[in-house]
Amino acid sequence: MVGDAQATRQRLLEAASREFAAYGIAGARVDRIAAAAKSNKAQIYHYFESKDGLFDAVFNALVADAVREVPLDVDDLPGYAGRLFDGYEAHPEVARLATWYRLERAGSQAPLESIIASNRHKVERIEQAQREGLLTTRYKAVDLLALVVHLASLWTATTPEFTTLVAGHSRADRRKIVTDAVAALLTP
Amino acid sequence: MVGDAQATRQRLLEAASREFAAYGIAGARVDRIAAAAKSNKAQIYHYFESKDGLFDAVFNALVADAVREVPLDVDDLPGYAGRLFDGYEAHPEVARLATWYRLERAGSQAPLESIIASNRHKVERIEQAQREGLLTTRYKAVDLLALVVHLASLWTATTPEFTTLVAGHSRADRRKIVTDAVAALLTP
Repeated sequence: MVGDAQATRQRLLEAASREFAAYGIAGARVDRIAAAAKSNKAQIYHYFESKDGLFDAVFNALVADAVREVPLDVDDLPGYAGRLFDGYEAHPEVARLATWYRLERAGSQAPLESIIASNRHKVERIEQAQREGLLTTRYKAVDLLALVVHLASLWTATTPEFTTLVAGHSRADRRKIVTDAVAALLTP
Repeated sequence: MVGDAQATRQRLLEAASREFAAYGIAGARVDRIAAAAKSNKAQIYHYFESKDGLFDAVFNALVADAVREVPLDVDDLPGYAGRLFDGYEAHPEVARLATWYRLERAGSQAPLESIIASNRHKVERIEQAQREGLLTTRYKAVDLLALVVHLASLWTATTPEFTTLVAGHSRADRRKIVTDAVAALLTP
């Protein structure tokens, strides 16, 4: 029975991840999530209390995964940006969920301490590398992190109007533009 | 009476712009827009046919404004990025509307020809400057445009978790990071 409950909860998270990535929080329909997970609305409210609660559970699980999957490498920031890019390519729903979170959820709940702590730790490691002369000091550490992470998301943020102009780009082309741009930022 | 109709339409567009920027398309409520514009739902459907139609009218008006306000300057791409940044700072709702458009609307309507044409024209001007030796040829023109525009939106895309780490930045600090980063891309 405990195994059943775990399995149901997991199916709900997976169905909710697809639904929220496609439609956002306001646009998501709890009954569609329940049907896709072969569950029902009562179970959703039992496990997650509300649609917002379900979104938060999905978001926290996916962000935690994303942070674990791509550790910061201060010796190779272009490679780090490339691996972030790879993550967005492999899991396009993560970038969409992060954007919905920023647009729909961020104003109504406190910033997540686990993400703040993770960012702070990354900033400290970049500062350390700057003190050791391994990284440019042209930018503050926090700004360099912001730039690298933002550049990694270059192709997740393009409009359909722009996408038509780069239809000939392979994934490798798009990746190289990201890593080259980060390398250019770091050139003394 | 024609003047009245124009004034009503304009009030609806302004109220809709605020509502859509805050809540997106799925989250927007037509009755809230009608009330804020001292109008009613019937008038909205009369002028714009549907909630999607109202969103498209808002989006097309704002994007047209944004393109007119910030002409591309191939001789000064850092300055161009800085002026795009200024536009986002002055009108934060534009970046939010563009993001909602990408998430909610882009899949269900054809890409807007006017924006494609505007982008294509910018790419041609960058190509021309590259041929004349005025701009780096390290990136294709279309990729350089993508990078510059994306960097200009650096601070519109930061999560609340990241924002807490850069709370001490002034607007001038944030602008300088954008223009410095674009300058670094262009350094031979």
